[in-house]
Amino acid sequence: MVREQELIRWVRRRAPEAGDDCAVLDCAPWGTLLVTTDGVIDGVHLDWRRHGPEAFGYKAVARNLSDIAAMAGEPLWALIAVALPEGATEEQAHALYKGAERAGCRLVGGDTAVGPVASVVATVLGRAREGGPVLRSGARPGDWIVVSGPLGGSLESGRHMTFTPRVEEARVLRERCDVGAMIDISDGLGVDLHHVLDASGVGCRVEASRIPRNDVPLLRALSDGEDYELLATVRPGELPEGFAKIGTITENGAVLVLEDGREEPLPRAGYEHGA
Amino acid sequence: MVREQELIRWVRRRAPEAGDDCAVLDCAPWGTLLVTTDGVIDGVHLDWRRHGPEAFGYKAVARNLSDIAAMAGEPLWALIAVALPEGATEEQAHALYKGAERAGCRLVGGDTAVGPVASVVATVLGRAREGGPVLRSGARPGDWIVVSGPLGGSLESGRHMTFTPRVEEARVLRERCDVGAMIDISDGLGVDLHHVLDASGVGCRVEASRIPRNDVPLLRALSDGEDYELLATVRPGELPEGFAKIGTITENGAVLVLEDGREEPLPRAGYEHGA
Repeated sequence: MVREQELIRWVRRRAPEAGDDCAVLDCAPWGTLLVTTDGVIDGVHLDWRRHGPEAFGYKAVARNLSDIAAMAGEPLWALIAVALPEGATEEQAHALYKGAERAGCRLVGGDTAVGPVASVVATVLGRAREGGPVLRSGARPGDWIVVSGPLGGSLESGRHMTFTPRVEEARVLRERCDVGAMIDISDGLGVDLHHVLDASGVGCRVEASRIPRNDVPLLRALSDGEDYELLATVRPGELPEGFAKIGTITENGAVLVLEDGREEPLPRAGYEHGA
Repeated sequence: MVREQELIRWVRRRAPEAGDDCAVLDCAPWGTLLVTTDGVIDGVHLDWRRHGPEAFGYKAVARNLSDIAAMAGEPLWALIAVALPEGATEEQAHALYKGAERAGCRLVGGDTAVGPVASVVATVLGRAREGGPVLRSGARPGDWIVVSGPLGGSLESGRHMTFTPRVEEARVLRERCDVGAMIDISDGLGVDLHHVLDASGVGCRVEASRIPRNDVPLLRALSDGEDYELLATVRPGELPEGFAKIGTITENGAVLVLEDGREEPLPRAGYEHGA
């Protein structure tokens, strides 16, 4: 079985620019270009008949904006490659493009084909803000682990189609705090925090009681995907509104402290696209 | 029915950067960024079982490289968003990535999902060479109309999977000639030349007998898609090897001079993706 992480590993072995939330491309003296591409497919991420074309356009661009946010970047431009199902109308196409536009990034190009399955692949380009992009690999022992909002239940609540990419929150966090590492929570807190630990060569101690969560049990807040909240590590200090501390970066190990004080390994479980 | 040109028109009304072979994005003083995105879908552009994953990877990137070539750009980076069919193996995924790499552009990122239909959407980023990108809108009355190679029969010959994007040819043409406009022939000579005429506000006089063609009748050389040769307009003068003059840009009208001397309107007919 092929997994999403496989392509990422494969590409990373060949190109040092790849492997974070976005590709990081040197365009000095203009700046550092951030590029990410990701799709929404009927029957995999959304349902064309149930959710409609507007949701396809919105979610495709918003997912990629979340990747730009995860590197504290400034989104600039989006392109979309659309496959419409046979018999799609112009009204449906327009609704799709409007959804893409509503996500909040300037649409500068794209391609449309008619195919057997509806899909929208968006590419978003952005620029790293002053100080460079925030990578997954920058977590330091002693950093606080913070999240930008409550987790879990995104799929059944519909939030996975309506979430606002945390571009502004990332900008503010970067401005006010000494940020070590950042990632967006798309595969689930457990999985995505492990990505940060692996990339940074560090450990963590997460306190279950501190994880802000929607109306779901703890395990769901840890493992549900598609939250699109930010997970960051920062030097201890005052946090901007909306951010909550859930633990601390340590030298090694990945510990989850349960509400009754027992300790467990932080589960790697979660939702991996394509798994 | 929705057509590919519809998205392009829709986007162009909103963003002046869009509407040519690539989006043209100002990243001064680094330069002008060219970005294009385009997909290959099972059952539409290729057949997964018959042509195999390597062809999907190659063609997805090569199509986009052809768009960079059409603006005389220098390709720099590629990303691919892959949908693999259920049950795809790691070997198939690797073959796909290798095909993408073989197209000749540095792979810096991407995404893989498992979906109901195999597809690869590639995004290629490049930089305009000195003097800026060559647009579709630059054709001037008196320019020669030239093509970079023989046309027609790409689908049945298999050339649509194995073509070499004309990046080098475009660079040389730009260096040696005063190029007005350029486009790659993906939808058919008739359609793509009309794109240039419309964008430039000019006409043409094409001599059928001069159109270099593969082993196909004239109409096929005019209307077959997927040639991925260059169509350019240049000030009269010596042409680089491989380029053939097929006509002249005029003030208005679009005339095809047949081999017996009769004149006809140049057909707009051709292969429009998604039509």
